[in-house]
Amino acid sequence: MSMDKIQKTVKTEGHLIDSNLMRRIFDTIISDNGTYEILEFNIGKTNDEISTAKITITTNDNTAMNIILLKLSSLGCIIDRDEEVIFEKSPRDGVVPSNFYSTTNHQTQIFHNQKWLKVNELRMDGVIVVDKKNAKVKKFRDVLRNDNVVVGLSGVKVLPEYVERDRSDFTFMAGDVSSERKVQLAVDRVVDLISGRTKKVAVVAGPVVVHTGGSVDLTKLIEADYVNVLLAGNALAVHDIESQLFGTSLGIDSNTGKPVEMGHRNHLRAINEVRRAGSISNLITEGILTGGVMHAVLKKGIPYSLAGSLRDDGPLPETITDMNEAQDDHIRILKDVDIVIMLSSMLHSIAVGNMIPAKVLTICVDINPAVVTKLKDRGSLQTIGVVTDVGLFIHMLGEKLTSS
Amino acid sequence: MSMDKIQKTVKTEGHLIDSNLMRRIFDTIISDNGTYEILEFNIGKTNDEISTAKITITTNDNTAMNIILLKLSSLGCIIDRDEEVIFEKSPRDGVVPSNFYSTTNHQTQIFHNQKWLKVNELRMDGVIVVDKKNAKVKKFRDVLRNDNVVVGLSGVKVLPEYVERDRSDFTFMAGDVSSERKVQLAVDRVVDLISGRTKKVAVVAGPVVVHTGGSVDLTKLIEADYVNVLLAGNALAVHDIESQLFGTSLGIDSNTGKPVEMGHRNHLRAINEVRRAGSISNLITEGILTGGVMHAVLKKGIPYSLAGSLRDDGPLPETITDMNEAQDDHIRILKDVDIVIMLSSMLHSIAVGNMIPAKVLTICVDINPAVVTKLKDRGSLQTIGVVTDVGLFIHMLGEKLTSS
Amino acid sequence: MSMDKIQKTVKTEGHLIDSNLMRRIFDTIISDNGTYEILEFNIGKTNDEISTAKITITTNDNTAMNIILLKLSSLGCIIDRDEEVIFEKSPRDGVVPSNFYSTTNHQTQIFHNQKWLKVNELRMDGVIVVDKKNAKVKKFRDVLRNDNVVVGLSGVKVLPEYVERDRSDFTFMAGDVSSERKVQLAVDRVVDLISGRTKKVAVVAGPVVVHTGGSVDLTKLIEADYVNVLLAGNALAVHDIESQLFGTSLGIDSNTGKPVEMGHRNHLRAINEVRRAGSISNLITEGILTGGVMHAVLKKGIPYSLAGSLRDDGPLPETITDMNEAQDDHIRILKDVDIVIMLSSMLHSIAVGNMIPAKVLTICVDINPAVVTKLKDRGSLQTIGVVTDVGLFIHMLGEKLTSS
Amino acid sequence: MSMDKIQKTVKTEGHLIDSNLMRRIFDTIISDNGTYEILEFNIGKTNDEISTAKITITTNDNTAMNIILLKLSSLGCIIDRDEEVIFEKSPRDGVVPSNFYSTTNHQTQIFHNQKWLKVNELRMDGVIVVDKKNAKVKKFRDVLRNDNVVVGLSGVKVLPEYVERDRSDFTFMAGDVSSERKVQLAVDRVVDLISGRTKKVAVVAGPVVVHTGGSVDLTKLIEADYVNVLLAGNALAVHDIESQLFGTSLGIDSNTGKPVEMGHRNHLRAINEVRRAGSISNLITEGILTGGVMHAVLKKGIPYSLAGSLRDDGPLPETITDMNEAQDDHIRILKDVDIVIMLSSMLHSIAVGNMIPAKVLTICVDINPAVVTKLKDRGSLQTIGVVTDVGLFIHMLGEKLTSS
Repeated sequence: MSMDKIQKTVKTEGHLIDSNLMRRIFDTIISDNGTYEILEFNIGKTNDEISTAKITITTNDNTAMNIILLKLSSLGCIIDRDEEVIFEKSPRDGVVPSNFYSTTNHQTQIFHNQKWLKVNELRMDGVIVVDKKNAKVKKFRDVLRNDNVVVGLSGVKVLPEYVERDRSDFTFMAGDVSSERKVQLAVDRVVDLISGRTKKVAVVAGPVVVHTGGSVDLTKLIEADYVNVLLAGNALAVHDIESQLFGTSLGIDSNTGKPVEMGHRNHLRAINEVRRAGSISNLITEGILTGGVMHAVLKKGIPYSLAGSLRDDGPLPETITDMNEAQDDHIRILKDVDIVIMLSSMLHSIAVGNMIPAKVLTICVDINPAVVTKLKDRGSLQTIGVVTDVGLFIHMLGEKLTSS
Repeated sequence: MSMDKIQKTVKTEGHLIDSNLMRRIFDTIISDNGTYEILEFNIGKTNDEISTAKITITTNDNTAMNIILLKLSSLGCIIDRDEEVIFEKSPRDGVVPSNFYSTTNHQTQIFHNQKWLKVNELRMDGVIVVDKKNAKVKKFRDVLRNDNVVVGLSGVKVLPEYVERDRSDFTFMAGDVSSERKVQLAVDRVVDLISGRTKKVAVVAGPVVVHTGGSVDLTKLIEADYVNVLLAGNALAVHDIESQLFGTSLGIDSNTGKPVEMGHRNHLRAINEVRRAGSISNLITEGILTGGVMHAVLKKGIPYSLAGSLRDDGPLPETITDMNEAQDDHIRILKDVDIVIMLSSMLHSIAVGNMIPAKVLTICVDINPAVVTKLKDRGSLQTIGVVTDVGLFIHMLGEKLTSS
Repeated sequence: MSMDKIQKTVKTEGHLIDSNLMRRIFDTIISDNGTYEILEFNIGKTNDEISTAKITITTNDNTAMNIILLKLSSLGCIIDRDEEVIFEKSPRDGVVPSNFYSTTNHQTQIFHNQKWLKVNELRMDGVIVVDKKNAKVKKFRDVLRNDNVVVGLSGVKVLPEYVERDRSDFTFMAGDVSSERKVQLAVDRVVDLISGRTKKVAVVAGPVVVHTGGSVDLTKLIEADYVNVLLAGNALAVHDIESQLFGTSLGIDSNTGKPVEMGHRNHLRAINEVRRAGSISNLITEGILTGGVMHAVLKKGIPYSLAGSLRDDGPLPETITDMNEAQDDHIRILKDVDIVIMLSSMLHSIAVGNMIPAKVLTICVDINPAVVTKLKDRGSLQTIGVVTDVGLFIHMLGEKLTSS
Repeated sequence: MSMDKIQKTVKTEGHLIDSNLMRRIFDTIISDNGTYEILEFNIGKTNDEISTAKITITTNDNTAMNIILLKLSSLGCIIDRDEEVIFEKSPRDGVVPSNFYSTTNHQTQIFHNQKWLKVNELRMDGVIVVDKKNAKVKKFRDVLRNDNVVVGLSGVKVLPEYVERDRSDFTFMAGDVSSERKVQLAVDRVVDLISGRTKKVAVVAGPVVVHTGGSVDLTKLIEADYVNVLLAGNALAVHDIESQLFGTSLGIDSNTGKPVEMGHRNHLRAINEVRRAGSISNLITEGILTGGVMHAVLKKGIPYSLAGSLRDDGPLPETITDMNEAQDDHIRILKDVDIVIMLSSMLHSIAVGNMIPAKVLTICVDINPAVVTKLKDRGSLQTIGVVTDVGLFIHMLGEKLTSS
């Protein structure tokens, strides 16, 4: 080896093969022009045991080494295990030191004052702020002047989730994104997951849920306590209320599927009614809104958040039009959620995917395979994609859960 | 007008506005660089009355005029009403005179021996062969030496179907191709259409029907006499039989959705079993095949045709591997069909679309909007597109038709 | 006719057949259970002449009649031509009278003080507010207490755009949404439209423009004065700046297509750099940002608007996070635009489609046919859909316009 | 361990981690209700060294064990290394023993007469027939009575290809199926691969290649010796010839994109011309066909095969209408091909994918991500998917390869 080669040794442990970590570690080193030598490798003898590895990486220069180490860090490799985490003060509100450490959505610890400290409020694409004995993730815009922001890689340990074999009931859909599957089986699995009402379930729903007639069944699921949080946009609430007040969805009669009057007018009338009453809640108190998704949400008192978008009409008084506020509100009510069911809402689904830790089980139902592919690409092993007609999917789910 | 302009007058009648014919006539003339003058226009005063028009077309040269007249002919315009149809003898088997008239899938008549004669065996892209007192459409390869093949446009009259307002129950889906519709309404409409068992119904089914679990319901529909003709490929029959013999579809367990043994092996075992028995029918006689789509088809004795394709394994003895023979067999059993329901089978759906007259009501169900768009593009006003999960669609159709 | 039938007579004029109006009038009457009788019909004898019609409608009750008249109104039919427009005062800021007239995106006039008055600031789904001698469209939330809001249909005349045959160069793509076209021809037509720099052109661009390498060519088009307005989201600007500062787009190297360092970190670094500098403009002044789309936009001084969305990181200081403000800002800079080119941005494209009058020529380029279909469904005859790879599309457009 | 447990030990070697084999072995055992213990695991210390493993599997019964062993066999695990391969005689032409071993598309060896024998003519879904000293794969229908067909798993060894890191230039597209990539980079990689003209390249082309204008560039590539084999359907040849004779493709003018005359007639005229001449070759000799894809293929004398399909018009004399014959002909000319480029042809692409060994590098270009996903699902690690506009893709490829 020539004199100017750089070498570094990393350790890692976990379900290195099951979770594909070992392969990704090798791929990372090679594709960034490094080479590796395995110093030790102890494979878990059974499914329950973890494996450990010690790997020496060689590169031509420091830049290449830093790139590789940065990537391996997010794959759970520990470099210089005993080194303290380093932080710098934020120069200004909303601005971080340029060498900031960017978070993943996996469990993370930092080595601070000679102890491993758990990082709270996990999410992707944030920074770690250390405050005496606590460490938590902040979004860039929430960072304050003089916050201690973690920089570099020293003392940061990521613990990637591994694929739980217990969830392998879903493996029939997890492998790829295809519409050529028996969706009834996916419905059965979701029934298994939520029928006990022991997991905290958030539903992210697009307006297609109303257009396809699925809101009837979603309402039933909410009334029967299967949904603990609702995340949606202005349009879902508008079309839900339109459907209740005028029997239409975007002007299409819910019973005949035929247009009635001028399509667009009814959803505007619904918006105007809510604005006149002052709130959806007032419209219920007035006895005008007596059913549907928003009615069930408000009657049950479950947390909900309606985020605005550039294409909204109105909007409703409840809709949060500022995106920073909407993100904060979403994150607030997503706290401690175990399962997120995403129904035909690309923008919302990706946004919510960014907000939650990797351990949250995510079920994404959409007739467009591109949405499912895109969500799975964002890195969570826990995302189950179901390519199907969302109206029929919820209808079957509602029938199975609420008929007995 | 300069001396070298060409003028010609055509007449037309029918539901010129409802069926969009008038607009298409104008578009045709303008886009081919002609101009028009309306000599007469009598609009039908009510929905039931037909309209009539007489239009003079002007072009710069004969070529432009011929192009326009050719196109207007397929829109139902009559040029030189009293002129006899012209035909030439075919020079050789399978070859037609170069100036051949190419058929549409609309009702057509020819003026022969001073009488309007109906053209039989309508289909697109054929030629009209006149045999003494009869006229019928032949595919190119069926034309025999010395057949009298109609050439040019003289004496040919096309009567385009117009959109029947009675079918307007489907208008909610007919306008465009969207997955944002309440599919349950489409199911209800199909139930209305076929529940009386008075129409002759052909089903075109792809293997996805088996993969998505829809074959259980398709079997029920066949057993309950709602299906009169089945058109499919080798793969549908193979996976249907695989599903019956081994409980899998492409190796995926039909009950759990999980792969069992090696995926591909089971469908090969199914093929081998049929080849060993000599036929699907023998496998039933042996008591080995006791259920499923092909079992129902053979027990009921309804006509079926399995067409081969380049991607087939096997194939089964019943599969027609020669495409010319398969086309002929399909056309034979499609005779007098009123409704075709196409389930997730792009190649087959387009092929069958080419074989049937425009008056046959076609319902195309596919999760891929491109298939539905492609089929509708082929020109039939009668094509209803339903973008949804085909497994759930048939399941709901089966439940509604066979549960009572 | 029984005594309780209702009758009403309407008049209409325009390119009734070319623009499909007559057919849609008939369809509307029949599908809402009315019948019609044509009292007069004068067809335009040539392509340039308009047609006129007088139609009597009969229904069973007043409700059916009102529904039909409401719909016919948006198709350009005039009921009781000499009747004055009616308006009521808005009861409260942001709330309109319940019988409000909802606008289309077509040219509209109101009959006020015995004169036809043009309605300004056209857009869909607003209300008409009359202020002494002026009438303009307001969004619901912009209506003020005591504004005079038009109610009912009296005295409102809509003048639907008709398909200009001059634009028929695009007809090859206008008929349907298909990827099976020669896109080079679409590029040529766009070149024809904008090469003279006489039309005001707005570009709506999604981040895919950067990911696919199209930002290089979009930059050239801006620098060469082919773009007059840019509408985008936070993500386009972030990835454009990331690409300039770090040579990556979402962490993918723009030259090799391979990931460098951690994907997500670079776009966060770009955001942090802009936040540190205070603005994109400051980053240019500092000499750090020296190229790309945003650089070109700011150097050229063309109006731009960046709208936030729920999935944004950051956001950049320039991004408008409040959706009401973002809509208002978009509408402001879209004023007097002649052509909108939409590049791979579903949410933005639909939002912008809602903001512009029907007469604006819209070219929607996306690899996903669903986006194009959705936009065309929204009612503008002027929308041209091009289903293709947006990166290659802009590349070819850039080459043709800026190479000579 | 209870008495009725079953145990078996297997060995495996190769790039167990890089190629994901180890993980798939574990997944297989667990998902089929087995457990495992690692007896030995020696990891390759560097990228070039192979790893070896020895694993004991435990199941509750023989059935479960057989299923697991069957699957592990196709993952390269060797059971009872010294056991001879077993074969049985085929009972009848085209029928195999029911316990047949079904082939994968990976390199395979059998242990016969105490020696490992290479299996020739690899393809998926066939059986291995042993003939004295040779072993080769046969399709079911090619098996003859008394052929020695391998049954069970004894003495069969599969050597799965591993992902060559050298090909990592394509890794930027290999990870998933997305249209959000810079396609120009994919074009560059294909240029790198084929510009040397040292690999044997087969092109599979659908008619969309003609519709999108790509046939001009494909013709150039053939004339410049970059294509060694052409596989297509009747439609590609028909539209290519139509384009040459009449300047249209499905009746759409290739230069203006506008329809000329009656769309369908021109492709029928093209078919009739070829049928009249007797062959495409004769049409060239007559001086009528002077350019295009088929002209280039015949002039260059490269092997080609046109397969029929159920939707064909005509067909052309060259089209092989019997699917068994077409498959055989395809397989014949695909022999020794190194690279297959698939251009917008779902049926053909999947069919050809079934015919080739896993080691053939496959590049699948389609605007529909579903096609690419489907092909990749079929198990070849060597499939590169490029989701883009095929017309623009070939155009850029043609420019880069033939302009210099």
